[in-house]
Amino acid sequence: MSEKHLSTGSECPPQDPKVLRCYSMKYCPYAERTRLILVLKGVKHDIVNIDLTRKPEWLFVKNPLGKVPALERNGEVLFESLITCDYLDQLYPTPSLYPSIPWKKAKDRILIELFSKVSSSMYKIYPNLKDSVAVNNAVEEVQKGLDIFEKEIAKRGTKYFFGAQPGMVDYMIWPWMERLPMVQNLIGDTKIISNERFPNLINWIGAMMEDATVKAVCISPQEHGKFLQLRLDGKFIYDFTME
Amino acid sequence: MSEKHLSTGSECPPQDPKVLRCYSMKYCPYAERTRLILVLKGVKHDIVNIDLTRKPEWLFVKNPLGKVPALERNGEVLFESLITCDYLDQLYPTPSLYPSIPWKKAKDRILIELFSKVSSSMYKIYPNLKDSVAVNNAVEEVQKGLDIFEKEIAKRGTKYFFGAQPGMVDYMIWPWMERLPMVQNLIGDTKIISNERFPNLINWIGAMMEDATVKAVCISPQEHGKFLQLRLDGKFIYDFTME
Repeated sequence: MSEKHLSTGSECPPQDPKVLRCYSMKYCPYAERTRLILVLKGVKHDIVNIDLTRKPEWLFVKNPLGKVPALERNGEVLFESLITCDYLDQLYPTPSLYPSIPWKKAKDRILIELFSKVSSSMYKIYPNLKDSVAVNNAVEEVQKGLDIFEKEIAKRGTKYFFGAQPGMVDYMIWPWMERLPMVQNLIGDTKIISNERFPNLINWIGAMMEDATVKAVCISPQEHGKFLQLRLDGKFIYDFTME
Repeated sequence: MSEKHLSTGSECPPQDPKVLRCYSMKYCPYAERTRLILVLKGVKHDIVNIDLTRKPEWLFVKNPLGKVPALERNGEVLFESLITCDYLDQLYPTPSLYPSIPWKKAKDRILIELFSKVSSSMYKIYPNLKDSVAVNNAVEEVQKGLDIFEKEIAKRGTKYFFGAQPGMVDYMIWPWMERLPMVQNLIGDTKIISNERFPNLINWIGAMMEDATVKAVCISPQEHGKFLQLRLDGKFIYDFTME
């Protein structure tokens, strides 16, 4: 495995054939999805972190599109975060992460799909921090995307979207929700998640932060903020230390 | 049901509660995905066609985002073409459409995902028919997307991507492959699918056209062409007759 993010010119660390390998990037929310499910399901795995701005040559040999996250087994590679998570869920069915009723399972898959409106709107905030109109528009888009989730969890009346425990919807949307406090720090005044508009989602965030899997995988807003600030300064540094 | 595409001001046809309803648009490739699986699995259903430029008010009551295709049961609605198809596949497991081995199933899901490169590139052709450079670039993008499928079916060495019968990959990519001859007619000279570059995909297209489900659902290149020509002329006419 390699905690350090590997770049061009590196060598691929040897893989133990009995251990599933996950190619990741420490601050990537898509990769976090896969790591959450690996930890939750107790899958024996190692992590190899990849420098996404200077991807190692050997990555493309294994994985022609060079995508991260990716899982490797017997020299073959799976990618696309949700597909890797569904694969792990099918292979290790306990704990279950989807409703057993097909209609309800499909509803949960639609929710995961609809969350892309939230995540894509978040990416409009970062490059526009000096343009308050653009930031406000993007924040409003994020909020409109989140309205669906506020309404849905209120309707379900459960602690998590899945029920008494988190399920696939909860874990698939979490990585971006984890980054909201960091985004809030960046933009200052405009409140993204107010108590008036998102009372149930605020409870959900609290409940997720109590979850053992989330605790094991999540990163502090300060560390997310430092990574993003370096990026915004044009420095793609993946391996830094927090003072 | 309604063969005619319903618009603003229309009334929703009454639904038989024992029959699954599919909201569709006759020429929409995404809706065709769902109709293929409905027919293949022998699901009792009715079709209500929707005028996508002037969607009926009642559609948004059932389905706030107004998306098509959608399935309705007991007043509840599912959308997203692949999710509706996976739902039908889970509910009616015969014939099977995915490999039973989780890793292979995930590989098939990745293929379906990768096809979006082909479909999105096709949509760059239509608005640029008078710009031969843009058309050539878009055709090249389509071809690069299809290279993955040519290579994959050659590697599998099977009649269909799924094996001796078509599976989810085959049916999910078919609607755009069905429209390729229509696109070829539109652009004239530049050959999209040549025998030299796509020998295995050409065999696959022939095999798909022999499939009973495809035969029951597909539409001729002439009819696709007429619909598109009307659209390019600014006329969004869904209910026309072929002379």
